[in-house]
Amino acid sequence: MSSRPPTPIRLADVARAVGGAVVGDGEATVAGIASLDRAAPGDLSFLASPKYAALFAGTRATGVLVTPELADAPGACANRVVVARPHEAMLALLPRFYRMPAKPFEGVHPSAVVEPGAVIAPDACVEALAVIGAGAAIGAGAWIGPHCVVGEGVTVGSGTRLVSHVTLYPGAAVGDRCLLHAGVRIGSDGFGFVFQDGQHRKIPHVGRCVVGDDVEIGANSTVDRGSIDATEIGAGTKLDNLVHIGHNVRVGRLCLMAAGTMIAGSARIEDGVTLAGQVGVSGHLTIGAKAVVTAQAGVINDVPAGQVYGGFPARPQKQVMRGYAAVARLPELLRRIEQLLKREPDA
Amino acid sequence: MSSRPPTPIRLADVARAVGGAVVGDGEATVAGIASLDRAAPGDLSFLASPKYAALFAGTRATGVLVTPELADAPGACANRVVVARPHEAMLALLPRFYRMPAKPFEGVHPSAVVEPGAVIAPDACVEALAVIGAGAAIGAGAWIGPHCVVGEGVTVGSGTRLVSHVTLYPGAAVGDRCLLHAGVRIGSDGFGFVFQDGQHRKIPHVGRCVVGDDVEIGANSTVDRGSIDATEIGAGTKLDNLVHIGHNVRVGRLCLMAAGTMIAGSARIEDGVTLAGQVGVSGHLTIGAKAVVTAQAGVINDVPAGQVYGGFPARPQKQVMRGYAAVARLPELLRRIEQLLKREPDA
Amino acid sequence: MSSRPPTPIRLADVARAVGGAVVGDGEATVAGIASLDRAAPGDLSFLASPKYAALFAGTRATGVLVTPELADAPGACANRVVVARPHEAMLALLPRFYRMPAKPFEGVHPSAVVEPGAVIAPDACVEALAVIGAGAAIGAGAWIGPHCVVGEGVTVGSGTRLVSHVTLYPGAAVGDRCLLHAGVRIGSDGFGFVFQDGQHRKIPHVGRCVVGDDVEIGANSTVDRGSIDATEIGAGTKLDNLVHIGHNVRVGRLCLMAAGTMIAGSARIEDGVTLAGQVGVSGHLTIGAKAVVTAQAGVINDVPAGQVYGGFPARPQKQVMRGYAAVARLPELLRRIEQLLKREPDA
Repeated sequence: MSSRPPTPIRLADVARAVGGAVVGDGEATVAGIASLDRAAPGDLSFLASPKYAALFAGTRATGVLVTPELADAPGACANRVVVARPHEAMLALLPRFYRMPAKPFEGVHPSAVVEPGAVIAPDACVEALAVIGAGAAIGAGAWIGPHCVVGEGVTVGSGTRLVSHVTLYPGAAVGDRCLLHAGVRIGSDGFGFVFQDGQHRKIPHVGRCVVGDDVEIGANSTVDRGSIDATEIGAGTKLDNLVHIGHNVRVGRLCLMAAGTMIAGSARIEDGVTLAGQVGVSGHLTIGAKAVVTAQAGVINDVPAGQVYGGFPARPQKQVMRGYAAVARLPELLRRIEQLLKREPDA
Repeated sequence: MSSRPPTPIRLADVARAVGGAVVGDGEATVAGIASLDRAAPGDLSFLASPKYAALFAGTRATGVLVTPELADAPGACANRVVVARPHEAMLALLPRFYRMPAKPFEGVHPSAVVEPGAVIAPDACVEALAVIGAGAAIGAGAWIGPHCVVGEGVTVGSGTRLVSHVTLYPGAAVGDRCLLHAGVRIGSDGFGFVFQDGQHRKIPHVGRCVVGDDVEIGANSTVDRGSIDATEIGAGTKLDNLVHIGHNVRVGRLCLMAAGTMIAGSARIEDGVTLAGQVGVSGHLTIGAKAVVTAQAGVINDVPAGQVYGGFPARPQKQVMRGYAAVARLPELLRRIEQLLKREPDA
Repeated sequence: MSSRPPTPIRLADVARAVGGAVVGDGEATVAGIASLDRAAPGDLSFLASPKYAALFAGTRATGVLVTPELADAPGACANRVVVARPHEAMLALLPRFYRMPAKPFEGVHPSAVVEPGAVIAPDACVEALAVIGAGAAIGAGAWIGPHCVVGEGVTVGSGTRLVSHVTLYPGAAVGDRCLLHAGVRIGSDGFGFVFQDGQHRKIPHVGRCVVGDDVEIGANSTVDRGSIDATEIGAGTKLDNLVHIGHNVRVGRLCLMAAGTMIAGSARIEDGVTLAGQVGVSGHLTIGAKAVVTAQAGVINDVPAGQVYGGFPARPQKQVMRGYAAVARLPELLRRIEQLLKREPDA
């Protein structure tokens, strides 16, 4: 993420930072983090599960974070930092090894286009060639990346980042501390037409598109505006890449939707729902709180709260798995059944 | 869509505009439109079906458009405008309450880049930081949004709008009165390679990509150019977000394709076809006129005109539904059949 | 692709170029290439299979490339160039008829924004309104299209083209002779969160995103960066439009992935794998070398090298096809089986 080389850190300091204990040489220094099989001398790695013991045995890392149970696992690397949760410890260490993305400056790049009446917080950053529409409001510490277009009257909350090439249509509102990746579109017209006089006449879309606080939206995902009411994405919800949210959809708080998932118009996704990759949800239905829908499922009826659904049409995952098993056994059984039926002419 | 507050309208004037009759206070004024459950005082709402009677009973709207049958439905809102089709009436009223999107100016923004030989109609609008290639032609009243790139020699018809961040490759032609949403790509190379000498050699793509009149294409959708001939999107066809149209595909007139639908190369989609969300269509086949394919279906053979197909491989929807029902009953039946077969050792 | 009219070519010269023999008038000239049914006088077409004999009979082309077996096929066009592989001959001729895309100039367009410390090869082209970040390196002959954003410290190899609106996040590296279509995003954060203290906390993504030589990536496709290690796309691999590659995925050399295919995090796709359209691959699994996965399949377990898999959950394609056939016969059989079971109360 950074082109600057990080400063090396002593393993004794690593142990202090994560509340662990050094086994081996605490004076050895590490300057990067890598997985066991890719680590080179000078890297710190981690071992959290015995299933990676073979990779651990051969790692070239200078130091390895290990659980107490695995502190004595056989391996070439003698320098170990023993800590209860190596994976979490590693995540906590990342900002010491890598420079996290940060605003390159405060203010407006001279190549950006800011229309009259836009209000930009003094400590916000508007990067090269961004366009800020008339009457838009950019909050404190917000970071508008290169080539983003913030439409007329749009509000962007404090601490929110639009990475690059993001489009916020007029009528969009994005909360605080959001992260919208490259190519996200918020507030495009919903897909609504009435067939009249031999053509598909467009239903005007005058609703808004409201994204709550702490939302992350992946690259090239799209959220349509409402036809009359607003489309809403609740606080703390995270969408992956290439996700589509239709018009008038109300997504609750703390939902997760993996790549390629698409929600048709006016569906309601309650709080804490998880939708795996490439899921499809039909319009005007409800997925209850904390329900989980598995990958590639097609939801065409309501899903009760807390249930795990899958398949097409989506139904309880246990039924789905039984159905798959039955289908796999089916050709052989059919052969035998047909023989049986031949002998039962009246059946 | 607009940051300007609309002018309040008397219910008597609403009734006159839609050919309806006021029940209650015709002097009451409304300044916005909202659904029954979200309406606030000052809003107009609508009730078109008895299934929303509960929402109607509790609405806070100042006035409600209702059908003659529902004119006396019990509810807090006493001011009603009785009209045969409340939903259509509401759509017709939208432009009175909301400012529809319109070109912000005529001419070329000083930050736009226009290459030599491009011809731009005097009443067209080219917004900030757009790029118009050499020899391109922008029609009367067209509206090229910020950050759009119109390639060399491309034609854009009169009254067409490219919202923002749209790419039209050289060789693309877009008709009149089209609407291309943010991030649409027209004329990218098709996915065609020949394996020779140990590598995938690219098949040159010199065909064009022709979009007819009155076409709408949703955000981040892609339409590839033809390899030799043109890829074509027929007049009046509407594509939703994240749709993909492969090289050499010929899409007819007045088709609808919902989000995530993808058409492989050289397929032919005849007039009036509807493809629901996340449908896949294999290459070199034909979907007949006015056929309908249901959500997530996978089409690997021709679909006859006028039929409703679904499932994978796509087949008549009635068969699909019977198949799903049979699969759902299968595990229990298999258990019993296996018991039966155990007693029929010769079967 | 070009707005310049090509120079007409004599059929005798066509024959010489492809090693064929003229039947008919070698002095006749052609100036374009078109399919049999769309060709006009002045076009060259081709006939490679007897199934297109009807189109051949009626073509208006001035000349047609034909196989020796079809040299005497009945048809209006008497001028034929007999050659062993008409389709390959036609591909070889394309550059004579059409101008292939090429850099419009060498150097940096005055509207582009180049940050300090970026190094751009003298014969590279940086088009209008592109942004080149600090410390980025653009290789010899590379072509950075309009509105592309090349992040801080990113390397772009020699001869590589970014078409337009491409985003390369910091930490990305793209090899030589690559082609990245409009709207491609390389290096966006992976979809990784840990639920702590009532919210989805983001896992920092500090890994890189490395694209090998000779890779083509289709319009609006996305490749996420690794969490710690790199996401990798191997040399010679080709991705279609709207493809998604998750964090830490390692894609081998010479793979093909058709539109809408999505690979979840940490999966490993070995060399020479083909994934058809809309395939989904779950995280942390392996698809063996030269395996093929058919359209819309959902891979949730490893796929052995060299196998053809399909369906959901993906399994050998032969099993899948037998399963589909069995399901299609199922409703009728179930009816008969239930009658049978009624007579077998103990079963």
